[in-house]
Amino acid sequence: MADRRASAEDSLIARYFKPIATDPGAFGLVDDAAILKALGQDLVVTTDAIVEGVHYLANDPPDTIARKALRTNLSDLAAKGATPAGFVLTLALRSADESWLQPFARSLGEDAKSFACPLLGGDTVSTPGPVTISITAFGRVPEGKMVRRSGAKPGDRVVVSGTIGDATLGLDILKGGAIAKALTGDPKGSEMLIARYRVPQPRNALAVAVREHASAAMDVSDGLAGDLAKLCAASGVTAVIDTPSIPTSAAAASLLSRGAVSIEALIAGGDDYEILCTVPEARAEVFTEAARQAGVAVTAIGTIMAGERLPRFLDGAGKELVLTRLSHSHF
Amino acid sequence: MADRRASAEDSLIARYFKPIATDPGAFGLVDDAAILKALGQDLVVTTDAIVEGVHYLANDPPDTIARKALRTNLSDLAAKGATPAGFVLTLALRSADESWLQPFARSLGEDAKSFACPLLGGDTVSTPGPVTISITAFGRVPEGKMVRRSGAKPGDRVVVSGTIGDATLGLDILKGGAIAKALTGDPKGSEMLIARYRVPQPRNALAVAVREHASAAMDVSDGLAGDLAKLCAASGVTAVIDTPSIPTSAAAASLLSRGAVSIEALIAGGDDYEILCTVPEARAEVFTEAARQAGVAVTAIGTIMAGERLPRFLDGAGKELVLTRLSHSHF
Repeated sequence: MADRRASAEDSLIARYFKPIATDPGAFGLVDDAAILKALGQDLVVTTDAIVEGVHYLANDPPDTIARKALRTNLSDLAAKGATPAGFVLTLALRSADESWLQPFARSLGEDAKSFACPLLGGDTVSTPGPVTISITAFGRVPEGKMVRRSGAKPGDRVVVSGTIGDATLGLDILKGGAIAKALTGDPKGSEMLIARYRVPQPRNALAVAVREHASAAMDVSDGLAGDLAKLCAASGVTAVIDTPSIPTSAAAASLLSRGAVSIEALIAGGDDYEILCTVPEARAEVFTEAARQAGVAVTAIGTIMAGERLPRFLDGAGKELVLTRLSHSHF
Repeated sequence: MADRRASAEDSLIARYFKPIATDPGAFGLVDDAAILKALGQDLVVTTDAIVEGVHYLANDPPDTIARKALRTNLSDLAAKGATPAGFVLTLALRSADESWLQPFARSLGEDAKSFACPLLGGDTVSTPGPVTISITAFGRVPEGKMVRRSGAKPGDRVVVSGTIGDATLGLDILKGGAIAKALTGDPKGSEMLIARYRVPQPRNALAVAVREHASAAMDVSDGLAGDLAKLCAASGVTAVIDTPSIPTSAAAASLLSRGAVSIEALIAGGDDYEILCTVPEARAEVFTEAARQAGVAVTAIGTIMAGERLPRFLDGAGKELVLTRLSHSHF
């Protein structure tokens, strides 16, 4: 459209985002809207925004920012048992900086492809403030089969995927905090933790197993302790967690054993993007096997109990941890 | 959830947005995702963000900001011939200011109700920058019936709803520009123009008529001249517009006749949120009648022609206007 005096916004969209909008419902991003087909299923809709300096650091590489923006949404779809169907992107930018947009769009396209979650449309706006990336993502589930937060029952096992607390350690390293010093001798561990902060690994491979076996699920984005409290509140139950069972990476375990970080900090830290779910006792074995086949590690960390109080985290001696905060809060 | 040490974000959502999220698919905003039912139709997806100081003025009232955020999206749905089905909201705020949030949420709820477009979910994040409101809205159309930008054919009539140029005049008044002075004797006209800037009137009542009769459509958000150029480009055609036929409000017409503003400024100004569509000659009469029954004024302003050049705007003497800019651009 260059010969038609296209606006700078249109040129930007045509140049960077049209090449990755390959789904027929995106109409090559030349229309005002996209078409999403439900294919006879329920559509699961989730939306998550990330703000420069709040959810990622201003000097994070654009390719990791793009991946984080999409993956935080993919993580929600996975926890709801949904298969990705596509997403729309709103990008508020200070300027159309090619050296930022080019790697941003390329990585977004790569993730869209590898997670089979095509870009369907979007809006690009100017802001004098921090870059703000808002994504609304869609998934499909068989009718009535979205996994809610509210189905946990007393006796269900509490299960998490992957490892907890890596991302909050990675953020501390990037900010030059105490963890950075504690890991000066372990550049590989340091790098892994930073990667866990910058590029979440959403557990979409686990979605079908969650949908088939979990009684309740959500993703852990604001800290395990706070998110478990939310799941319990939505289900009208409480939980007892065996804190030593909480899965940690080798790097986090080493920091814990050296006293460089507390388990409380790890379970109140955010950005894990792991799946927290509850599985009825009778389904526990088949769920674990389904997870194994999906290639995702899952760990039972406790049990759902009747009651309304906050979930309790017990140490190895059965003593309750005192949590001064449960999770990250933006306000 | 106050007894569970809910995060400030959760409290904010529960307090202001849960009361307006009455659709069953919203799950009272306590889950990570919403459910959207396609009901056997195609889902039309559109997303539009507005940024404080860019798309609205920092001192605009929160109730008009809420309405504008939703209505810019409703306008897209109307132009695509879609019936509203719901929306998700991402709100980036500097602080949880009750005196702002309360009227914002109340008005959003009122518009959601009156346009039958329920709030399904959202995300509330903190920003150090300008308030940024991003909405993704959904509509339904019978399969394959979304009205595209690309269907205009030579001979089709070019039609717009409502009046053009009011919002750009309203913005000029709010900024204390020349129009404010020119209208000192006409406070009612001034008020109307400001209202047109702050609170768009999306033409959802016209959606079915557009779907049944228009060959192409879009909403006018960045200026009639530029948006018509986009529609023509997408359709591979051009257009000739009879500029004196372009509908204007009494206030705008008075300003035009007094030379206080040029028609060029009105057709390049943004924020009209009227429908621009093309209607085959044979359908023109029935479309006009359907619009009349829907209670929306529509005006034929020109004709689609074969060719690839920019649309021409002719004055009463048949002379082509020279447009120095076609539309508003954010970059």
